Amino acid sequence: MAAVALVQGASRGLGLEFCKHILLNKAPAAVIATCRNPEVAADLATLSAQHPGRVTVLKLDVNREDDIKNAAETVKSAFGKVDLVINSSALLHPSGKGETSLRDVSAQGVISTLTTNTVGPLVMAKYFAPLLQKGGGMFGQQPVEKAKQHSGIIVNMTAKVGSIGDNALGGWYSYRMSKAALNMATRNLSIELARSRPRIVCVSLHPGTVNTDLSRPYHRNVPKDKLFSTEYSVQCLMGIIDSLNIDKTGRAYAWDGSELPW
Amino acid sequence: MAAVALVQGASRGLGLEFCKHILLNKAPAAVIATCRNPEVAADLATLSAQHPGRVTVLKLDVNREDDIKNAAETVKSAFGKVDLVINSSALLHPSGKGETSLRDVSAQGVISTLTTNTVGPLVMAKYFAPLLQKGGGMFGQQPVEKAKQHSGIIVNMTAKVGSIGDNALGGWYSYRMSKAALNMATRNLSIELARSRPRIVCVSLHPGTVNTDLSRPYHRNVPKDKLFSTEYSVQCLMGIIDSLNIDKTGRAYAWDGSELPW
Ligand SMILES: NC(=O)c1ccc[n+]([C@@H]2O[C@H](COP(=O)([O-])OP(=O)(O)OC[C@H]3O[C@@H](n4cnc5c(N)ncnc54)[C@H](OP(=O)(O)O)[C@@H]3O)[C@@H](O)[C@H]2O)c1
Ligand SMILES: NC(=O)c1ccc[n+]([C@@H]2O[C@H](COP(=O)([O-])OP(=O)(O)OC[C@H]3O[C@@H](n4cnc5c(N)ncnc54)[C@H](OP(=O)(O)O)[C@@H]3O)[C@@H](O)[C@H]2O)c1
Repeated sequence: MAAVALVQGASRGLGLEFCKHILLNKAPAAVIATCRNPEVAADLATLSAQHPGRVTVLKLDVNREDDIKNAAETVKSAFGKVDLVINSSALLHPSGKGETSLRDVSAQGVISTLTTNTVGPLVMAKYFAPLLQKGGGMFGQQPVEKAKQHSGIIVNMTAKVGSIGDNALGGWYSYRMSKAALNMATRNLSIELARSRPRIVCVSLHPGTVNTDLSRPYHRNVPKDKLFSTEYSVQCLMGIIDSLNIDKTGRAYAWDGSELPW
Repeated sequence: MAAVALVQGASRGLGLEFCKHILLNKAPAAVIATCRNPEVAADLATLSAQHPGRVTVLKLDVNREDDIKNAAETVKSAFGKVDLVINSSALLHPSGKGETSLRDVSAQGVISTLTTNTVGPLVMAKYFAPLLQKGGGMFGQQPVEKAKQHSGIIVNMTAKVGSIGDNALGGWYSYRMSKAALNMATRNLSIELARSRPRIVCVSLHPGTVNTDLSRPYHRNVPKDKLFSTEYSVQCLMGIIDSLNIDKTGRAYAWDGSELPW
C-alpha cells in the first residue's frame, strides 16, 4: 500500500506547500489535507484536480476535538493507517501581531493562541497515534534492527522563538509560550510513543522565517536572503523528515538540521 | 513604608505557608493573601487574627482577568505599591491526577490547566507590574550600583517536571506543558521588566516535592526524606528570594538553589 501523509492546516502557507511537495516528490503517496473550510480552499481544490485520486480534503478545525475525532474515523475507514502527520496550523496571536509588551497581553489572546498552536497538535496525536501505529514506516529512515523501526512520524511545526533558552529579545508572549508548551508536548509524545509498539517518532521542526501570511507583518524587517520561500523551507524540512529515525525522536530541529535548545 | 508581599493562591499548601513565613520572619511586612473563596479560607482568617493589621485577604480567581484587575486596583488604593508577588496557585489536572498516557488527554483538561497555571500568572504580571515598579525593592538583594537595583520581584511557582530537557519519564501532559509555558512567560517577563525603570526581577522557583493536596495522590511513591514539609520548602525558597537581584532574573531555580534546565 502507498504511503499516506496527513497535513493539518493545509489551506495556506507551509501546510499547503507540504502537500504540493509530497504530491510531486513522493508519488504515489496519498495526501490527506485538512483545513477549517474546505469549501473555500481553492488551492487544495487545484492540487486535487492536478493529482487525481491522490488528494483527500477533510474539514478539521484543530480547536474542535470532535473535528479531530471525526477526521481520524474517516481516515481509518478510507486508508486504515497514516505514515506521517504534520501539524502546521498556528497563529501568531488573534490580532495577527505578536504582543510587543505586557500591555498587549490579554487572557483571551493567550488562551486562543495556546488552544490552536499547542492543544490542537496534542489532541491530533491522541486520535492519530493508533493510525500511525498501523503505518508502514514509509517516511524517515528504517534501521536494519527491527526493534528500532518506526511505523509513523508526527511533526509539530515549532518556531525558534519558542526556545526558552534562546530567548534574548522578549515579546510575542502568546506565540512563544504556545511553542514552548508544544515542544514539551513533542518531548512527552516522543517518550510515550517510543515505548509503544510499533514505535512512532515525534519531532518539532522550525521552518526558518518563511514568506507566508503568518510572518507578513514583519517581512520588511527581514533581510531578503533570510526570508525563505515556502518551497525552499519545505524542501529543507522534508530532507530532515527523510532522515528521521527513533534515535532522533523527541528533539527540535531547524530547517538546516541544527538542533534547537529548549 | 513597610514591605508589601502579595501571595496569589494563598488558601492552602505552599501559598498559605508563604504567608505564614513572611508574617513570622519579615515583620512588619504586610501580606496580601489572595484566594478564590475568602469566605471559606479559615486558615487565612486565623492568620489574620494572629497578626492584626498585617493581613489583607482579597478575592482573586486567577482564571478571571477582571478579578486580577480589581485586586490590583484595591492594592493600589490601599498600599500604592507591592514589593513581591508570588504566583502559587496551580492544579495538576482538573481530575486531580496527571495524565498517565495520551488516552487520558482531553482538549478541555489541557486548556483548564494552562489557563490557571500559565495564563493566570502572566495576567497577574500585567496588572501588578506597575505596582511592583512603585515598590521599594524590599525583597532580594540590592547591589550598590543604583542602575542595577530593582523595585520588585515576581516569583512564578514552577515544577521540575516542567523542564523540557529534564523530561525522561513523560506523562502529566497538561501540567508539564503548563509549567514549560510558564517558564517561557518568566523568561519573557524578565527581559521586558529588566528593561523597564525601575527594574523588576522575575524568576521561576521549584519547591521540591512537598506535602500538599496537589501532590497527595502520589505521596506513597515518594521516599519519606524526599517529601518536604511546606515549612521546609518555603524556608528554602525564601532563602533564594532573599538572594535575588537583577543578575539572577529570568531563570528557574530549585529549592536547593540549583538552576533548572529549560
Ligand atoms: N512563516 C514563518 O516565518 C514561520 C516561522 C516559524 C514557525 N512557523 C510555523 O510554521 C507553521 C505554518 O505557518 P505558516 O507560516 O504556514 O502560517 P500561515 O501561512 O499563516 O498558515 C496558517 C495555517 O493555519 C491554519 N489554521 C489557523 N487556525 C486554525 C484552526 N483553528 N484549525 C485549523 N487550521 C487553522 C490556517 O487555516 P485558514 O486558512 O483556515 O486560516 C492556515 O492554513 C506554523 O506552526 C507556524 O507557527 C512559521
Ligand atoms: N506540592 C508539590 O509537590 C509541588 C511540586 C512542584 C511544584 N509545585 C507548585 O507549587 C505551587 C503551589 O502548589 P501546592 O502544592 O501548594 O498546591 P495546593 O496545595 O494544591 O494548593 C493549590 C492552590 O491553588 C489555588 N488555586 C487553584 N486554582 C485557582 C484559581 N483558579 N484561582 C486562584 N487560586 C487557585 C487553590 O485554591 P483553592 O483552595 O481555592 O482550591 C490552592 O490555594 C503550584 O504552582 C505547584 O504547581 C508544587
